[in-house]
Amino acid sequence: MPRTGGAGADDQRSGLSRRGLLGLVGTGVGAGVLGLGAGIGADRAVSARTAGGSGAAASYPFFGRHQSGIVTTAQDRLHFAAFDVADGTTRAELIELLQDWSYAASRLTAGLDVSPTGATGGPLAAPPDDTGEALGLPAAGLTVTIGFGPSLFTGTSGVDRFGLASRRPAALIDLPHFPGDQLIEAASGGDLCIQACSDDPQVAVHAIRNLSRIAFGRASLRWSQLGFGRTSSTTRDQTTPRNLFGFKDGTANVKAEDTRAVDEGVWATADDGAPWMAGGSYLVARKIRMTIETWDRASLAEQQTVFGRDKGEGAPLSGGSEFTEPDFTAAAATGGPAIAPDSHVALAHPQNNAGATLLRRGYNFVDGNDELGRLNAGLFFICFNRDSRRQFVPIQQALARSDRMNEYVKHVGSAIFAVPPGASPDGWVGDTLFA
Amino acid sequence: MPRTGGAGADDQRSGLSRRGLLGLVGTGVGAGVLGLGAGIGADRAVSARTAGGSGAAASYPFFGRHQSGIVTTAQDRLHFAAFDVADGTTRAELIELLQDWSYAASRLTAGLDVSPTGATGGPLAAPPDDTGEALGLPAAGLTVTIGFGPSLFTGTSGVDRFGLASRRPAALIDLPHFPGDQLIEAASGGDLCIQACSDDPQVAVHAIRNLSRIAFGRASLRWSQLGFGRTSSTTRDQTTPRNLFGFKDGTANVKAEDTRAVDEGVWATADDGAPWMAGGSYLVARKIRMTIETWDRASLAEQQTVFGRDKGEGAPLSGGSEFTEPDFTAAAATGGPAIAPDSHVALAHPQNNAGATLLRRGYNFVDGNDELGRLNAGLFFICFNRDSRRQFVPIQQALARSDRMNEYVKHVGSAIFAVPPGASPDGWVGDTLFA
Repeated sequence: MPRTGGAGADDQRSGLSRRGLLGLVGTGVGAGVLGLGAGIGADRAVSARTAGGSGAAASYPFFGRHQSGIVTTAQDRLHFAAFDVADGTTRAELIELLQDWSYAASRLTAGLDVSPTGATGGPLAAPPDDTGEALGLPAAGLTVTIGFGPSLFTGTSGVDRFGLASRRPAALIDLPHFPGDQLIEAASGGDLCIQACSDDPQVAVHAIRNLSRIAFGRASLRWSQLGFGRTSSTTRDQTTPRNLFGFKDGTANVKAEDTRAVDEGVWATADDGAPWMAGGSYLVARKIRMTIETWDRASLAEQQTVFGRDKGEGAPLSGGSEFTEPDFTAAAATGGPAIAPDSHVALAHPQNNAGATLLRRGYNFVDGNDELGRLNAGLFFICFNRDSRRQFVPIQQALARSDRMNEYVKHVGSAIFAVPPGASPDGWVGDTLFA
Repeated sequence: MPRTGGAGADDQRSGLSRRGLLGLVGTGVGAGVLGLGAGIGADRAVSARTAGGSGAAASYPFFGRHQSGIVTTAQDRLHFAAFDVADGTTRAELIELLQDWSYAASRLTAGLDVSPTGATGGPLAAPPDDTGEALGLPAAGLTVTIGFGPSLFTGTSGVDRFGLASRRPAALIDLPHFPGDQLIEAASGGDLCIQACSDDPQVAVHAIRNLSRIAFGRASLRWSQLGFGRTSSTTRDQTTPRNLFGFKDGTANVKAEDTRAVDEGVWATADDGAPWMAGGSYLVARKIRMTIETWDRASLAEQQTVFGRDKGEGAPLSGGSEFTEPDFTAAAATGGPAIAPDSHVALAHPQNNAGATLLRRGYNFVDGNDELGRLNAGLFFICFNRDSRRQFVPIQQALARSDRMNEYVKHVGSAIFAVPPGASPDGWVGDTLFA
């Protein structure tokens, strides 16, 4: 059911803080026009208009044990944003920002405007609360997933800005430098992140834009990335999509139905060292530029050797079909292993990484072209794991050292975030950290 | 019906030129592997698998009186590319490029790979003809629309590179400098353009990537732009979408059903001065960055005054509903005109532009953010008109001089292209120019 311009009947009381409202109006005009609910309690428990499912009408709950956007059926489009907290922001103001984001996200994911008066229901003399470009659009499967970067805990100059240093999870490491990394500072790091996924890019962009706006004066965009097409399936009912190398990606991805693998490899527990992260996960983002013009000149044989799979079906070169387990001991007809030991599938496979798995949730991107006419394109890799020290880092170290694919990729952006558990309807995302 | 990796049964003979194949293989390995059809005749007349309609399964014909992608029901996503012809390219090679593009586009728009062997049907020792990321995807309403920039006719240094100077249509003007223009050279101009529209961005990106690849050595990308959401309707069955100002856009757009307006305002005729353009049109592209953070701080009243319409319904401020004709003589309750004479709707309206109309076909874009954390976002404006001297230019001059919206927009890219008529199945796009 599309959202409408007026006040939502289900939510007459505003949950945006005074600061959030000041952010919206900018000039200060109109502040206090809406009811300034000090807390953001039960009035936020907006029920999704349509439950679960897929397609444009899907709606996923914002509140719950885990944040949505992790094991949620991977949506088609992405707008990802990393933020830095503004200088001088206090701990109380940071908390208020997370409360405001939670309130707004709970509405947006239900297909509503950011506040009851929304895009058109407020006074003519004030800026609208909502920017309006999603008016008439359904929730479109929107999920908003919030994370905390290492610098939130230590500050950029080592100052414990928010009294959080002792709360930093050991698993929230500073990612090491990997061989071949050519990181751009402006596409890396961040105090906070928001991953907005939706089946409609206008809905994802609307979410990031409005959450950025609500953060005005407290946090600002550090970098952001649009992804136009998913490169992973996260549930068994999804067909495996293709990356810009033209290969199926994510065939062996951890799926939501693999509850044991999800429990072991995705969700942090209270015993992992940071009890406030129980039910949360760790997100690693890597912006991987593909030199697709070089790739496109490689022979089909070379391309398939790099992946260790065939291009058409995605079957391992050891035989079978897409979902056949690769056999790393199988020999090729011409002698030697059917799957090269330095192929992508061999190096990334759990069997060769002490069982380590990743829940991948990446997206294809194209950011125009460079001055030589080459598409600035690639994979915006996102994964969730329980402990990057045992999962992402060793896998990426193996890949960075030896992967045949390295000839065709360049890692230009990198970030890691602790994604706290989901909140209850009378809480907010991050409340366990500040408790 | 999704494409498959193997050879298309309906098209066993390749229509790509030797140069096109050389472009594909890059190193020269594999050239001559496919049959090198000298002509690109009836074997190209691929019939669309599904005719017309909308949604992911839609397929539009590539051949016909007009090129598709103009009055075609506006698809959801865009990848637009401008190319420069490589130094030293001959007239014959330019013709061959257009033949190769037409051949490949006729296949892509039918949901096929660029050649019969495609992404996986060729020899293992050669690079695949098709890059493969659209394997398994339907045509998804793809249209490929090809245009010629002024510099194709004169060359960048005034040299008549291809013997086309005398064939340049008078209507293919060099666009004037408009007040406020802050054009970036790297986002403006171009010898050639391809507009790829589809309901699936992966399909549009696949088309531009593969057509760029086929052009290798003959033309290279000058600039390119992804658009994630349409901002115009071009047929009456479409709901009016919203731009990133949050307003409905294109309510008064020329629609395909307005056959008289289309005939008068879109299609060039043999009597217009360039008979080879009969059935073609002129495309103007303008990359318009919106300073959305400033806009978002403007009051609802200011926003509505700028547009001359209300934000919720898109009704003119003179009253009625979305499709009510604006009444520029109506008075506001508070005195003065209900619709400000310098509002966008007033300045752009045909009534105030000697009846001039535009068929708009623009898209919302977000290209990340700038170093101050502001989204680099806006409207990639595209319009088609019969003669920009009577249509786009006077309208844009009125807007550039007086539009209240100018406070919130910055034109950073600009280009104009002559879009020739559609080709017959035994011809190619542009054949009337070189006849």
